[in-house]
Amino acid sequence: MPAMNSPVFAQGGYRPADAGHLYLDYEHLGPASGFTDEIFEIIDRIPLFEDMTRQEVECLCRYMGCYGAPRNASLLQEAEEGHFLLIILTGGVDVIKRTPQGISMVAEVGIGGMLGEMSLIDGAYRYASCVATRPTDFAVLTRTALNDIFVDHPRLGNKLLLLLLQLMTRRLRDTSNRLLPHLGGITV
Amino acid sequence: MPAMNSPVFAQGGYRPADAGHLYLDYEHLGPASGFTDEIFEIIDRIPLFEDMTRQEVECLCRYMGCYGAPRNASLLQEAEEGHFLLIILTGGVDVIKRTPQGISMVAEVGIGGMLGEMSLIDGAYRYASCVATRPTDFAVLTRTALNDIFVDHPRLGNKLLLLLLQLMTRRLRDTSNRLLPHLGGITV
Repeated sequence: MPAMNSPVFAQGGYRPADAGHLYLDYEHLGPASGFTDEIFEIIDRIPLFEDMTRQEVECLCRYMGCYGAPRNASLLQEAEEGHFLLIILTGGVDVIKRTPQGISMVAEVGIGGMLGEMSLIDGAYRYASCVATRPTDFAVLTRTALNDIFVDHPRLGNKLLLLLLQLMTRRLRDTSNRLLPHLGGITV
Repeated sequence: MPAMNSPVFAQGGYRPADAGHLYLDYEHLGPASGFTDEIFEIIDRIPLFEDMTRQEVECLCRYMGCYGAPRNASLLQEAEEGHFLLIILTGGVDVIKRTPQGISMVAEVGIGGMLGEMSLIDGAYRYASCVATRPTDFAVLTRTALNDIFVDHPRLGNKLLLLLLQLMTRRLRDTSNRLLPHLGGITV
């Protein structure tokens, strides 16, 4: 139990122990609620916060931690564990993956983009690696924080999950469409 | 407003007007809460209800309607609108889709399987068509019912959306893996 008068807990939700240990080598910038002005400057580029009110975003920020990483830093490592997602606030990353053809670049993700949500959801290993192409600040939402949101703000939890589902559905449609020309199966 | 003594509303949540109109040509069997015994017999085969308590499943069933369709019935039609998902209770369906190679069978879905969840989530057109290969009973969850669940039972809404996200994530990993051997992109 934290001290009753812990100023961080008084802000609501943020657990330093939950966020601060994720990236020991990078600068831990504290709760995302310390960066709401910066986040609202790029809010139109953050699909995960689409259609959310200012109040809802401020509430979510209290459950997220921020980090700053240098160029070439590894933010996620393919095949490793990690139950959290990232939102890129500044900078950008390359998403790379081992394929039968070698190491391939799967995507470039810039400001507002989201990474790592599959492992947040299913707890399975990271699907790809993410490397900062320039100095990059990012916010982290952990599984623990998500569970806290469900308990503290279940309606906001539904809105966040529905947005995540919409983003995943878009990616599933895109990926399925890219697979279509290669589809075998029985032609009927 | 419905009459205060409406027996259907007294059961909690089910809106006949929301479910009864979806399939005018097939038999409307009423709310899924009339089939909870049948549903619990196959509960281990329904991924969407995984880890739910009996009470939670019973609650969800009050928000779902059931239909019976004959062999060769079209349950979903590619490129049409429809903001609802189906859970197969008896029988089975073929999932077919137009591809560059013609009409291809994408999947066979049997008892407990889920169909149509992408359009439920993003409101976009059906990705594929589903045709009953034998007489098939199915339960329907509409967007309206999902919104009602968020309002009436927000914590249960969290659990349902998280299960949906887990199923979508599994499909996205599978589809991405199938695409990998065909992936172009820049090799680094």
